Amino acid sequence: MPKQVDHEARRRRIAEALWRIAGGGGLEAASLSEVAAEAGVSKGMLQHYFKNKSEMMLFASGYLADRIDARIRRHFASTPEPGTAALTLRSLLVGLLPTEEDSRTETLVANAFFQRALTQSEVADRFREGHDQLLELLANQVNAAQGSGELSTGLEPRREAEILLALTGGLGDDLLLGHHTMETALTTVDYYIDRLRR
Amino acid sequence: MPKQVDHEARRRRIAEALWRIAGGGGLEAASLSEVAAEAGVSKGMLQHYFKNKSEMMLFASGYLADRIDARIRRHFASTPEPGTAALTLRSLLVGLLPTEEDSRTETLVANAFFQRALTQSEVADRFREGHDQLLELLANQVNAAQGSGELSTGLEPRREAEILLALTGGLGDDLLLGHHTMETALTTVDYYIDRLRR
Repeated sequence: MPKQVDHEARRRRIAEALWRIAGGGGLEAASLSEVAAEAGVSKGMLQHYFKNKSEMMLFASGYLADRIDARIRRHFASTPEPGTAALTLRSLLVGLLPTEEDSRTETLVANAFFQRALTQSEVADRFREGHDQLLELLANQVNAAQGSGELSTGLEPRREAEILLALTGGLGDDLLLGHHTMETALTTVDYYIDRLRR
Repeated sequence: MPKQVDHEARRRRIAEALWRIAGGGGLEAASLSEVAAEAGVSKGMLQHYFKNKSEMMLFASGYLADRIDARIRRHFASTPEPGTAALTLRSLLVGLLPTEEDSRTETLVANAFFQRALTQSEVADRFREGHDQLLELLANQVNAAQGSGELSTGLEPRREAEILLALTGGLGDDLLLGHHTMETALTTVDYYIDRLRR
């Protein structure tokens, strides 16, 4: 199906152009014409994928979700010792922090979406979907670490997952603002996980 | 000094106009002319207070810091039983959450500033100042609650303050996005403080 392949390649090309613009901090300010120029396609072609700014942001939020998902999976896969649930949990949390150039742009984009989600319900829905998936992932991991005796049995996995997600969200913002260095943020994560063991 | 009083009243009037515009979600998009019109002053008069958009945002970030400071103090004052440090800590955390209409706008404005802080260093400095003051306040409170035997002595106050601040920042975003209701956010805060007692 060569036509389908071409379509996917074009989607990716447009998404990557959006990403470069977002990395400069200006996704919310970018016009469709600018995005078309950056992607090297005509405005008409671009409008085949999204008709207006709202649809463009929705398209980009889907791309963001895919990227975060892929990064989380990488952190899952790179956990050195399978069976050490607390270590996997740590890896997941680190994966959620903007510690690399890529994830820094993601956090910037996520913050632009945050503003938009407050007024555009489809973006809010997408946010909630990603949020719920992460919650489940973290809760399962807390549960697994309790099962293997690594974390305290007194914890409520779902509640802990909510706290961990809010905590990494806040730490991520602190990192971007320079309130934390990567080193102090990781020390905080380690300190926190250590407390969950008691 | 009647001239000085007039000056202060005008500052407040402009700040309140900025606030109304921010409440509608559009501070970053607002022009100086729009702000002048909203405040009922001439553009020339407005430019006596700030010459351009960057200065306007800095002015507004100062106003935001004052409001948050005043709200935190109210929560401090309204703590029912002096001497119950953990309860005061809870009150502080609740004060940081966007649970009322006022603080909701504050969080919206703070998020707009967050984006700006990433590119305008004076706004980042103001952020850091507020952040450091809150850290100190929270660390002192954790320390006091340890001293009175309310919280576990195994906690590091400064580290706990960092976690509490990141946590309330994340919970605040979750509240605005509708991932939490005020009720579930407060349950999470209570659950968390309860865990600090062990």
